[in-house]
Formats: sequence, C-alpha cells, structure tokens
Amino acid sequence: MYLPNIPCQYRRRKRKKIESELISVNNLTKMKIGKPANEVFEAFVDPEKIGSFWFSSSSERWEEGKTITLRYEEYDAQGDIEILEVEKNSKIIFQDEEGHIVTIKLKESDDSSTIIEVNQEGFKENDTELINQLIDNKEGWVYMLTCLKGYLEYGVNLRAALVK
Amino acid sequence: MYLPNIPCQYRRRKRKKIESELISVNNLTKMKIGKPANEVFEAFVDPEKIGSFWFSSSSERWEEGKTITLRYEEYDAQGDIEILEVEKNSKIIFQDEEGHIVTIKLKESDDSSTIIEVNQEGFKENDTELINQLIDNKEGWVYMLTCLKGYLEYGVNLRAALVK
Repeated sequence: MYLPNIPCQYRRRKRKKIESELISVNNLTKMKIGKPANEVFEAFVDPEKIGSFWFSSSSERWEEGKTITLRYEEYDAQGDIEILEVEKNSKIIFQDEEGHIVTIKLKESDDSSTIIEVNQEGFKENDTELINQLIDNKEGWVYMLTCLKGYLEYGVNLRAALVK
Repeated sequence: MYLPNIPCQYRRRKRKKIESELISVNNLTKMKIGKPANEVFEAFVDPEKIGSFWFSSSSERWEEGKTITLRYEEYDAQGDIEILEVEKNSKIIFQDEEGHIVTIKLKESDDSSTIIEVNQEGFKENDTELINQLIDNKEGWVYMLTCLKGYLEYGVNLRAALVK
C-alpha cells in the first residue's frame, strides 16, 4: 500500500550473484521540482542554501576536486564528501567517507520544471545490514528531496524532523 | 551517507527465521510535525484534507468499521482500505487490499507539536520482491509524511511529484 501498481526504484547493478564477489547495489530516487535546473543546482552548490533543506552547513561552494565538510548541527554529526564531477546545472557526482558514490542529475523540462534524480551506489550485497542500509538511505533521500521541493517552490523549511 | 550514525528504521518482528514459515517484517517511519495531534488526526480522517498531502480523494470520513476508497487521479489508481480501529487524535489502524496492516500513532508533545509514527506490517520475508517492496514502501511513507508536514505547518501542497 502506498502507490499501487507502480514499479519500485530499487535496482541491482548486476543481476547475477557470484559467490565471494562483492556486488554493488544502488538506490535511485526521482522527484519533479517546479523550478528551472539552475535554481536546483545552486541549492546544492551554494553553501548559503543547503541549510534550508538538507545539512545545516556546507563548508564552501561545491566545485570539482574540492573536499566539502557537511554538518548536521541537530545530530552533532558531520562528514566530508569529495566532489568528483560537476556539470553546471545538470550533474554533480560526489563520494562520501564510506566510499558510496552519489550522482545527482538534473533534467529541465519545457515548462521550466526539473526532474532531479539522486542515485547512490556502493552498497555491498554481502553486507548483513544491506536491507537496513538501503531502507534508511531511501528514507534520507526522499526526505531531502521533498524538503528541497518545499524550499525551492515555497520557501519553507521542513528539514530535521525525521525521528529515529 | 545521509544521516550518519543513526540507527535504521527497519525492524524484523521476529528475529529468527524458521524454515517454510512466513515471517512478517515491518516498515516504521516517524516525523515531528509542529501542530497539535487533533490537527494531524483530522488531516487523515477528513476527506476534504487528504488531497493536500496524500491521495487525491478519500470517499468519506474515516471511522471504525468503514471501507474507504482512496483515489490517485494522477496515476489513475485507486484502492480500498478498511478502517479497523480509531482512537480520536491518537491512533488509526487500517488494512489495505493486499492485507498489510498500517498503524498511524500520534503523540502530542508539551510544545503542541506531534510525533507521528506510521508502521506498515504484513510483508512476507520469503517474498522474492521483499527488498523492493520495503524500499518502495519506505519511499511512499516518508514522502507522504513530509507532504503532510508541509501542508499542516505552511499550507503548501507538495504531493504527486515522485517520479517512477
């Protein structure tokens, strides 16, 4: 029950499991945001904006090759990401400290809205906590993207309300 | 990467798998909403409100023993739920057509905000699509709850923007 008859987002990168090999799985989330791609792009790369929908702070502007420190004041937690690739208004790829690769893609439509797609890769299929990790990860991305939509479309701040 | 060092929401109802027995797993999602419990409760049971954050329509007011038809105009999809239990301003339990049981609990805090908890049970552990179902289900509940927060706190409508 939630959205009946709609195929799910979880995809294996490789279908066949080979014994003793680590097989990577990914988590893909997509949302439509009623703003042009450049506004969605700037929300991520401009450290003045991230506190309105995701982390509480970002150490500097996201640019290719930089290491950025992201901080959650609410959870007294922080982590570094390395920006691997940036294509202005269309793509950002970064790696987190656990080695996951996150790819954010933006596709602007004719009506000046944008489909944003976030794909996280690098989960290991033989990890005993795989299901937990994937579900927790999905929760995070859906929440962030909905907060981003609220921020860009209406200027509202919905972040830091997930209860664990 | 998303919220580091925070335990995940996925819980098995029974830890030990017994061969050839169906073991039920559940999906739990919690969010803080800055409104009193009666306003959160009314958002679900009043058919005038549901279209602002979840389905496009609900056939009538949710009351114990009723069968309610929920419709998503955007996806041309609909389904019936049976309302099993209602405790005003604190709990709603319903069953969907696939036999899943959904429990919505509301706990109001001293500051007149509410912790809402949604728990869906009835996934079968031996289902080959279990991981997909759990991830897809988690996506739906997080999205609905964030839309609910946006609607109740700011009067904004963020629904029907997940892209599949």
